[in-house]
Formats: sequence, structure tokens, C-alpha cells
Amino acid sequence: MANEPKTYDLVILGGGPAGLIAAATASVFHKSVALVDAHHELGGAGINTGTVPSKTLRETALALSGLKSRKLYGVDLSLRRAVTISDFLGHEQNVRAIFNETYLKRLESSRADVFFGIASFVDPHTVSVQLIPDPKQKDSSSESVLLRGENILIATGSSPVRPDIFPFGKGEIYDSDTILNLDRIPKTMAAVGAGVIGSEYACTFAALGAEVHLIDGRDTLLPFLDEEISHALVVAMERGGITFHWNEKVHECEILPSSRVTLKFASGTSLTVDAVLVAAGRKSNTERLNLQAAGIGTAERGLIKVDEQYRTNIPHVYAAGDVIGFPALASTSMEQARRAVVHAFGRKISNLSPLLPNGIYTIPEVSMVGETEESLRKKGIDYIVGCTRYENNARGQIIGDKDGFLKLLFRRDDLTLVGVHVIGELATEIIHIGLMAMLTKSTADIFVEACFNVPTLSVLYKTATMAALQSMGEPPPMAASS
Amino acid sequence: MANEPKTYDLVILGGGPAGLIAAATASVFHKSVALVDAHHELGGAGINTGTVPSKTLRETALALSGLKSRKLYGVDLSLRRAVTISDFLGHEQNVRAIFNETYLKRLESSRADVFFGIASFVDPHTVSVQLIPDPKQKDSSSESVLLRGENILIATGSSPVRPDIFPFGKGEIYDSDTILNLDRIPKTMAAVGAGVIGSEYACTFAALGAEVHLIDGRDTLLPFLDEEISHALVVAMERGGITFHWNEKVHECEILPSSRVTLKFASGTSLTVDAVLVAAGRKSNTERLNLQAAGIGTAERGLIKVDEQYRTNIPHVYAAGDVIGFPALASTSMEQARRAVVHAFGRKISNLSPLLPNGIYTIPEVSMVGETEESLRKKGIDYIVGCTRYENNARGQIIGDKDGFLKLLFRRDDLTLVGVHVIGELATEIIHIGLMAMLTKSTADIFVEACFNVPTLSVLYKTATMAALQSMGEPPPMAASS
Repeated sequence: MANEPKTYDLVILGGGPAGLIAAATASVFHKSVALVDAHHELGGAGINTGTVPSKTLRETALALSGLKSRKLYGVDLSLRRAVTISDFLGHEQNVRAIFNETYLKRLESSRADVFFGIASFVDPHTVSVQLIPDPKQKDSSSESVLLRGENILIATGSSPVRPDIFPFGKGEIYDSDTILNLDRIPKTMAAVGAGVIGSEYACTFAALGAEVHLIDGRDTLLPFLDEEISHALVVAMERGGITFHWNEKVHECEILPSSRVTLKFASGTSLTVDAVLVAAGRKSNTERLNLQAAGIGTAERGLIKVDEQYRTNIPHVYAAGDVIGFPALASTSMEQARRAVVHAFGRKISNLSPLLPNGIYTIPEVSMVGETEESLRKKGIDYIVGCTRYENNARGQIIGDKDGFLKLLFRRDDLTLVGVHVIGELATEIIHIGLMAMLTKSTADIFVEACFNVPTLSVLYKTATMAALQSMGEPPPMAASS
Repeated sequence: MANEPKTYDLVILGGGPAGLIAAATASVFHKSVALVDAHHELGGAGINTGTVPSKTLRETALALSGLKSRKLYGVDLSLRRAVTISDFLGHEQNVRAIFNETYLKRLESSRADVFFGIASFVDPHTVSVQLIPDPKQKDSSSESVLLRGENILIATGSSPVRPDIFPFGKGEIYDSDTILNLDRIPKTMAAVGAGVIGSEYACTFAALGAEVHLIDGRDTLLPFLDEEISHALVVAMERGGITFHWNEKVHECEILPSSRVTLKFASGTSLTVDAVLVAAGRKSNTERLNLQAAGIGTAERGLIKVDEQYRTNIPHVYAAGDVIGFPALASTSMEQARRAVVHAFGRKISNLSPLLPNGIYTIPEVSMVGETEESLRKKGIDYIVGCTRYENNARGQIIGDKDGFLKLLFRRDDLTLVGVHVIGELATEIIHIGLMAMLTKSTADIFVEACFNVPTLSVLYKTATMAALQSMGEPPPMAASS
């Protein structure tokens, strides 16, 4: 145990998207920073176990299924037999290595001290860090250090929940941190939990040729989505070869001698598959932080509660990212952390806009920002809908996307854009066109008047707006097409 | 010859993007419309000889080169030997057929009378249409009809120029209307003229494996582009296997007995290739219109001059699209036609915003809107640049785009966004995020404050903005990353 703590303006716990942005932001204020990460890899779940690996695998799946749907005659495309997931991820390993190196360099250039180890609070201003030896360096030390922070940011992220019913470690049972260790694409697979992670992996594995079963205790897919989009996604996923088991609960999980898994459901039916992905939600990584020493409480699943400035109940201790719960996206985590640090160093900053786009990398992909029809009805706001399908668009035809559509919601009284919903190729990119319009409180006019490149999917905004105006009957819409 | 003319509120000459939008717009005003097209296919160059076919072929090329660059281990992808272009275009034929049918239905539902034939003016209000028999219907008539329009819109498009030096009809010499009739991907190919069309086809054929030579009388690629983007495109195209011949003019063109072509240059050198694409500009389709009968003059290459309302020198005769020249894009043509019709029927409409995005489907693709560094310097406007490369972005890493970058130009005094330049995958789509910001006169703040989906290319806007702010030194930028 070291004696005197090293003192910093900001101590950051966690080197994921939130922690990295926090360090960069603090360096802009010329503040001294220590960053503690529990792994020898920076980037957090975003880079190392979540976003990037799963999206890299999805690229392969998309290329396979996308090329098929585009009917590119003249091109032979086939999956090599007996291919392993790590074959697919050869490229991803590079991406990861590049990012880890980039992050480390950025931290160095922001003059942040980086400690790889397990942090726990000693008092509200001090954490003890049990250093972890670097597996790549034989002589690296495993002592501990004390860090004192004028301000502390907790950004330790979250981990998959592993319900007791599933005997992890035996047979082919995985969570989202381990699923990419699969040797082969399983012939049959069950994903338990049809949240974002379960749905995304279900789509990727189905596109890679697995027979996928998606099991959920509810009867609606991703209920925060606009109802029409959620329904369209179910239809598209079913067409992609996914079988949904709604209102179903796993009652028992049996490992067969072959390592295959039989799931027995509360309804009395059962299902035997080559592999199971348990996607039963995530819990905040707060157990080892000894938060009570700082006087910080947690809610269920270890969640830390924060105010609008991302302060915990202890004013100089902030928290951001997955550790504070919904929406728990890399994008929002970074914004939260940036705002927390700006606030910590006494700058005024506006509250984070509630206009947070949500991007879901299912196949087809889905994105939304703002209100849904359901939320508008609840609020009693009268609205009009403008909807247009990808197949009415030249680019949509070229790429052969038959499922995609864009749906715009305008307030009826002044035609302000209040919600954007997209399902289909590039949904997570083109959503930002609507986001810009919403951030500037634009009305239908902006899409009527704007000139869009052709052939693009972006011009769907114009077509959908024309459809909305036409649905009003008057004033005469300026009909356009794409 | 018919006797009494049929009378309409609007007679539209040309069934391309401009003509089709004009008909739809007029129908919103409950006006009677006749539309004349010289082919039995609607959609104009956009659908039938230009945009859609070339972009469909490009999809295949992209899939091949894109997958290669993404290093998707585990996937075998190969071009079938001896594949023909029409194999590639099997899908495109469907797209074309779908669009033709859709357009015809839309015209019917707008109660427009459609005439397939050659129109020529009889007087300023009347055109005679020599009907063309439908090749698919044996008993269709070939008489002529007279159409009288209270208003007339000329939207007859443009055709490739065929300089005399090239003996079209002999050997392997093509223009952009005929290049897709090529039997096979040529082993070697020359494109004469490095404009948009020449550059786009050069990239597609190079990606399909041809050795491509691009010949131009100038020394700058697409000089309307931002200089840095133009230069980056040259580098990327050269890496893609294209050889540029700058400041070079074809002096003589010789067809060899094998049908191969030898080009002899003014510089004294020569080049023998399997096929030549002549992309020496386009001329307006006005020769057969007998414009003098209406009192309308034309400029060089048959161009019709119009005012800001798209009126010719005869006030009730409008013109829109390629026939009036630059920028001659499907996107701008549609907007011009819509505005012309709204004006014709006495509605107020704002002038077309000068913020016209430009999308170029080279490989990599390029898009821009607003000012370039060069135009800002000329105008004496002080600016700051924010630039970020795709490879610093998680999505850019996943897709393996090493050439791409986004460059934002902000006015220094108030940080208003005044120009957006992108080279790389999805350039023509993500440009519209910047377009929305420019249409709403937004400043750097909008990208600092907005939350973008991760991993997307769209978040490059945030990274580039941070780079611009950092380059100013103060006020302290809120550093972010993607």
C-alpha cells in the first residue's frame, strides 16, 4: 500500500468512451488527470467487447445478405466452409489494436496519468488502485496506489447480467462479452432476451446462416420504438429466418453431453440448440468500487443516480455512461462525460438536448429521434405523418431494399418536425439529417425547399414530407419525387 | 397532320426528372397537362441511360472493391470469368422497368396526357408532335398531333457531344449513352474527358478490373471541387489503377483491324486500347424543337437561356434541367421544374437556394455544398477549417476507408458553416447533414452540441468541428472524439 496519495484535478474511473472524452475535455482546461481502467485495453465495451467487434462481424453478414438481395449477377459470393468467427474477426483485431494505441497516445498527449487496475473508494476524495500486471510485460508491478481527486468521474460501464438459471461455463452458453469466442457459426441458436443486444446478434447470426430463435417475456420488440417500425422490424427479421418466441420465459436450462443446450420454457415447450446467447440486460460495474466509503448509494443492478449535471449525491463525484443506465449508448455516454467535466471546472454548459438519436444495428437497421406516434398521442399533440418506402426511391431500388421506409412526424399546427423514424439500410446515418432539422426547430419547409443529391436515400426526406403535406389536402403541396 | 390543336394549361416537352415533376406539380394545381417524350421510356437520362444504369454497375464494382478493402476474411468473392456487362445489368433492367411503369402510372393518376413523339414548335403556344410507333405494339399509329399550351416547359435534356475526330460506329468507340452496350469488361480502356461522367465511368471500370487511362486537356480534376478534395481524388483514383494523361489532346483516332483503337495525342505519344469512352461534354436537345418558330434563341451547344424563374425570352415558355446547362443534375433539374410550374400558375415561390449539393459517384465518392477554400479566399472571407479522416472514426475503421475525409469551412467571425466537402464512402449521403445546418444558418455549435449515433460516419461532423475549434486556440474547445 502506498502512503501519500497522488493528487489530481480529476480522477476518472473507466477508460471507455465516457472516460476518454472526460480526459480529453479536462486537458483542454489544463487540468491534471488520472485515468484508471480495469483492463489493459482502453475503449471500454464500445471498442473491445461491444460495438466495434459486433459491428465488424455484422459487416460480413451484411455483405453476404446484402449482395444476395442486390442480385449482383456475375458475382460469385460464398461463405467458406467451416469458417470460424475468429476468421471473420481478423480485421476486427486490427481495428481494436489501432484504437487502443490511438487512445493511449491521446491520453499521453493530454498528459493524463493512466493506471491499469481495480479502483475502490477510500473516502469521498480518494481511491485506492490495485494495479494489475500487464500480461504482455513480465516485470510489471502489482502494487497499489492512492489517488486523490478534487473531482472524480465514475465511468466504469456495465456488464451482462448472468441469471443463475444459466450454468455459464458449462456447455455452449454465452453472454454478449463471450459470444464472439464461438468457434463456428452454430447451426441453431437461441438468444434469450430480445432487447437491443439480443436482437442485433440474432440478426447477424441469422444473416450468417444460423437458424435463430429469439425468446422474450414480452410481446413487443423494442417497445420504445415507433409501433409501426417495431412491427416492420419483426416482419423483416422473421423473413430473415428468425423465429420469435413471445411471452416466453426460460424455466430450466439443461446442458446435453454434446454441449448442446435444451431450454425448457414456462409454457411447457422446449427447444434444443447448438448455442445460447443470454442477453438478459446489463448491470452497472459498481460492486468493486466500495461506493459506501464515498457515501454514494446505488439503485437496482448497481445503477448510480445522477442529477442533470451528472453529479451523484456527493457533489464533486460525477458519473456518466452505462453506469448511470438508459440510454447507455457510446454516443450519449461521451456527451454526458463531456458535460460533467465542463461543469466540474465551472463552465456554463447547456443541458444535454433531449434529442438523442437511437441507432440499432439489426438487419435491417433502425434509427429514431424525437417523438413516436404513441408519445404524441399521450401528450395530446396533433400531428401528421409523412411516410415513404425505400422502393419508391432510385437509390432504394438500386440497393434492392424492399423493407425500408422513412417516417416523419410533424406537428399539425405549425408543421414543426417532431419525430423521425427510419428502418432500412443506412438508417443510423440518415437519421442525422432529421436530427439537424429538429435541433434547429425546422418545419416541413426545409425539406420542401432543399435540393438533395440523386440517387441517394437522403432524398426520402423530401418525398416523405410531400406525402405528409398531401395528406393534409391543403395548402396545395409542391409534389416532388425522387 | 391533325387539324385542331388540343389545348392544355401546360405542355411539357420531355419526360425526364424535370418533366415528371412538372406534371405532378401542375396536377396539384388541378391544371390540364400534356407531356411529350421522344422515347417509349420515361425517366430521361436519369433512369434510362445515365444515373441509374451507371450507378447499378457501380454497385457491383463497389461490392467487389469494397469487400476487398474490408478484408472480410472467410468470404470468397470473385468475378465470374467472361462475364458481360449485361450480366451485371440484369438487375438494372428490372429497376428501369419498375421506374417506367411507376412514372406512367403517376402521370395517369395526375390525369396528364402522354404523347410519345418528336415535338417541334409551330408558334409560341403550339407544338406539333410526330408520334413514334410503340416498338412493342404493332398497330400503334405514327400520325402527328397539335398541342396548344397556355404555358410550355422545355425539359428535353441533353446528349453526349460526338466530336468529328472519333469515328463512331466503327470499332470500339462509345459515348455515355452507348458504353453500357459493351460486351465484355475491356482489358484496357481510355476515357477522353475527365469531367464527372468520364471520371465516374473510369472508376467503375477500373474497379471491375480494366486498365483505365483518363485523358484531359486540363491539369486539374473537376476544378469546381475544393482543391484538397480534387487532389485526394486523383491520388485515390491513381491507387485504384487509373492513369491520368493531363494537358493532352486527341489528335487522331485510328481503328485497328481488331476493332481496337489507337489514340494519337497532340504531344506526339499514342495509346492503343480495347475501348474508348468519349466524354467530351453534352449538348442540349434543342435541334429538333424548331425554337425559332417560338422566337426562342439558343446559345452554344444548343443551350436555352432562362431567368431566375426559369422563363425563356418568351414569358410563357419555361425551360429546366440539362437543357439550360450547369449544374445539369437530376436533383437540380427537378427543383427548377417544380419552381417553373409554381411560377407559371401564379404562386409565389422563393428562388432556388444557391445551396445545391453536388454528388459525384467516383470511387471514392465525393460530395460538396457551399463555398470552397478557393471561393472564400476570392471573396475575402476569413475562415477556419475543420478536417477529420475516416480512419480516425470507428465506422471508418470498420469499413476500412483509408482515403476518406470530411472538411468543414466555418466563417471565422461567427463560426457560421459555409462549406462542406467530403470524399469517401457515403459522401453523397452524409453531405445532407451539413446541408441542413447550412440551410438553417447554423454555426459550429450545432455539431458540438448534437449527439450522433456511434459507430457512424455522421459523427465525423462533430470531430471535424472540434478540430476547427482547436485550431483557433480559444475559446477552449470541448474536445470530443468518435
